[in-house]
Amino acid sequence: MSLDNINPSVKQAKYAVRGELAVKAEEYRARLADGDKSLPFDSVIFANIGNPQQLDQQPITFFRQVLSLVENPVLLENPDVLKTAFGYKQDVLDRAKALLAAVQSVGAYSHSQGAPGIRESVAKFIEERDGFPANPQDLFLTGGASSGVSTLLNIICDGPKTGVLVPIPQYPLYTATLALLNATCVPYYLEEDKAWGTDVNAIKQSIKDAKAAGTDVRSVVVINPGNPTGASLTADDIKQVIDIAAEESLVIMADEVYQTNIFMGEFVSFKKRLRQLQQEYDNVELVSMHSTSKGMVGECGHRGGYFELVGFDPLVQEQIYKLVSIGLCPPVVSQCLLETMVNPPKAGEPSYELYDKEYSGIRDGLAQRALALYDAFQRMEGVECQKPQGAMYLFPKIELPAKAVEAAKAENRAADEFYCLRLLDATGVCVVPGSGFGQKENTLHFRTTFLAPGTDWVERIVKFHSEFMEQYR
Amino acid sequence: MSLDNINPSVKQAKYAVRGELAVKAEEYRARLADGDKSLPFDSVIFANIGNPQQLDQQPITFFRQVLSLVENPVLLENPDVLKTAFGYKQDVLDRAKALLAAVQSVGAYSHSQGAPGIRESVAKFIEERDGFPANPQDLFLTGGASSGVSTLLNIICDGPKTGVLVPIPQYPLYTATLALLNATCVPYYLEEDKAWGTDVNAIKQSIKDAKAAGTDVRSVVVINPGNPTGASLTADDIKQVIDIAAEESLVIMADEVYQTNIFMGEFVSFKKRLRQLQQEYDNVELVSMHSTSKGMVGECGHRGGYFELVGFDPLVQEQIYKLVSIGLCPPVVSQCLLETMVNPPKAGEPSYELYDKEYSGIRDGLAQRALALYDAFQRMEGVECQKPQGAMYLFPKIELPAKAVEAAKAENRAADEFYCLRLLDATGVCVVPGSGFGQKENTLHFRTTFLAPGTDWVERIVKFHSEFMEQYR
Repeated sequence: MSLDNINPSVKQAKYAVRGELAVKAEEYRARLADGDKSLPFDSVIFANIGNPQQLDQQPITFFRQVLSLVENPVLLENPDVLKTAFGYKQDVLDRAKALLAAVQSVGAYSHSQGAPGIRESVAKFIEERDGFPANPQDLFLTGGASSGVSTLLNIICDGPKTGVLVPIPQYPLYTATLALLNATCVPYYLEEDKAWGTDVNAIKQSIKDAKAAGTDVRSVVVINPGNPTGASLTADDIKQVIDIAAEESLVIMADEVYQTNIFMGEFVSFKKRLRQLQQEYDNVELVSMHSTSKGMVGECGHRGGYFELVGFDPLVQEQIYKLVSIGLCPPVVSQCLLETMVNPPKAGEPSYELYDKEYSGIRDGLAQRALALYDAFQRMEGVECQKPQGAMYLFPKIELPAKAVEAAKAENRAADEFYCLRLLDATGVCVVPGSGFGQKENTLHFRTTFLAPGTDWVERIVKFHSEFMEQYR
Repeated sequence: MSLDNINPSVKQAKYAVRGELAVKAEEYRARLADGDKSLPFDSVIFANIGNPQQLDQQPITFFRQVLSLVENPVLLENPDVLKTAFGYKQDVLDRAKALLAAVQSVGAYSHSQGAPGIRESVAKFIEERDGFPANPQDLFLTGGASSGVSTLLNIICDGPKTGVLVPIPQYPLYTATLALLNATCVPYYLEEDKAWGTDVNAIKQSIKDAKAAGTDVRSVVVINPGNPTGASLTADDIKQVIDIAAEESLVIMADEVYQTNIFMGEFVSFKKRLRQLQQEYDNVELVSMHSTSKGMVGECGHRGGYFELVGFDPLVQEQIYKLVSIGLCPPVVSQCLLETMVNPPKAGEPSYELYDKEYSGIRDGLAQRALALYDAFQRMEGVECQKPQGAMYLFPKIELPAKAVEAAKAENRAADEFYCLRLLDATGVCVVPGSGFGQKENTLHFRTTFLAPGTDWVERIVKFHSEFMEQYR
């Protein structure tokens, strides 16, 4: 096989989050670990990906205590030692036993939609979040939200004639998966100067254009809170999207993995908003996705998550079941983790105090770092950044001198990619160019997480930027 | 969305292992659990899927002790208590520390190919197994072998003109994935009367026919030891497949997940055989797959595994990296489990004695059950079964009375499906009809695992079969 005869759809797919820059950053990391002193920095900062436990973030104790017990249930035979020597509380032991009863063994395949008992917990969580019922049969546990997106787009897409509305900028999983399926991405642009809000007129125009080009627009993706934008939608914003979906018979794919990463206002789920409008709309199909990788949980490596189907034809749901059954089941340990995430210790329970302290500590730390980074961007020449509302990222706009743009062209690179490569080479800080997420023509951005501890790395960016601007002025 | 407008390739895909029968079996299980006394059996036996820990099999202690520590590294702070109260040995503690050093946290995304340190262990395992070097850069850790198969077929296939040779009978993952990719399955029949051996003339004829039909045959799948057949290939058998692959420029997909489930002879890997012939063949592309789900490990729920690429173009390998990076990384706990599987305690090490006892106990138990089931099939009228050589399954041929075939037709079912449904309804034993794996026209089979403990369920099959034969004689 060669590049000339492999599946051309794979060649088409792009995924910048783990692309050239990330590979180069990993090489720098390995060189530093091997004692290489020739680099102009002493650590690599992976700000290219929302991977909190690669950086500073410690896992939440309750989750990991429970998981240690489901991995080795023999530990449960000596509860007193667990308590006295290791500080495990009774609710940890009880939870582990309940999970083992639900899955039998974390080494056994579960139901392909996830263990029924765990789906019941997730349904309860959704009910409490939204004030509307949820049915375990409509829940599909997944290996991270990514695999759920892949499943759903596989169902929706039937070649190039199928169009899916994707916000620009977007998390590149969507465009990459559409490329793999040889389906058509129908972009709609977010409004940067309105804090990256969703512009329903832009969606309508995109639908109109796509239809004129013969595309059958079947679905609209919304990422809320936004990745890479950090925007958080209001109940009104969400209603407007639902209005369009009802009018145009679009399946709403609501990527809500950052639902607890909110700094301003409060999170409103698409499910809740749809149910509030249900008398008006009984024909809207919605899928809502969640994950154990984000929020204050940050357990990316466990690959856990779920999606909920609302308003789907039962026969289509059967096809989705068949599709996921081919992959057998999501990792069972991650299902257990998901259960602890949706059903954490409650006030008055033995593990609550520590859980609450850890959870709040992570939440407050993230908010502080987001604002500190935002402040730093305010100080930088030619950089404009929307105030963070949610998620784990900032997506500043950068205006680069004409000479820098020319230098990039000479290297056959996009100007933002050129900038990010220079930043990495000079400082060890790895961010992702805006072109990896999509951006309006003649604008440049980059995405950075605000997960890395300390302020040193932020100062590295500030210093680099000022020198870069001087160099190419 | 409705059945009329979803992706037709999804509708085409079939996966009987978790199909109608499995769903019905799960319903029976739930009814029994709810206290339903109306069924003619008191337990459901899931012999439809190789899922050892759902049945009798206990996990191997060393693996789970290590995993409990990587899930909660705080436990490592009190090594004496781990040893005295819970029997953890020093090598367990050391291994957990080494794995944590390799992955940092099991909650962090790893490298998309899997943590480099773990890939090094896998490479060493392959070197020791085959006597030829392996390169960690050619290894891709996966979430079970299934996701590896999906990745590779995604790379190889480019629509209906691409053909992939699949043995019949086969594990339906292959035909299902080809259906999803809208590629062409080119079947080649295994020789039942030669213990389900691989007939190279059958492969050659299939290639010839496919080419005549305009199909570009790109790859050949070999499952060794065989699923569902239980066959184990000799070094000569393997050479013959390599010969054809070299002649016809086929990528060999060697599904070797049952490589330690061998009852007769010894396992020879495709990689080893290819390297032995390397002076003759330097142009053969091979991918070899392995899993933590099978063997004596049986940790299906953890979703771990790997594939190794041999002789691949580096530019194609880059595309494979990009493809897996879209899904971020395989579950990190499963990567740790894989490491313990390929690098288990060695003679003289503290955990060796127990490990060896557990491992041998599982191995011997599986061999005994395989033979006991084989013996039972010998006793049954109209049933013919090849002697088990490996894997976890028997695939007996059944000859049913004409009246039974008519009764099946009246229900619009294949005769083997009809038989398996009656078996489930009467006994609670769930097996999979041969039509789910493919079989020569005018033959009927079913696949059963031999994982369930005891002999009661085997006697249930024997009794049912004799009554069924009487009823339709």
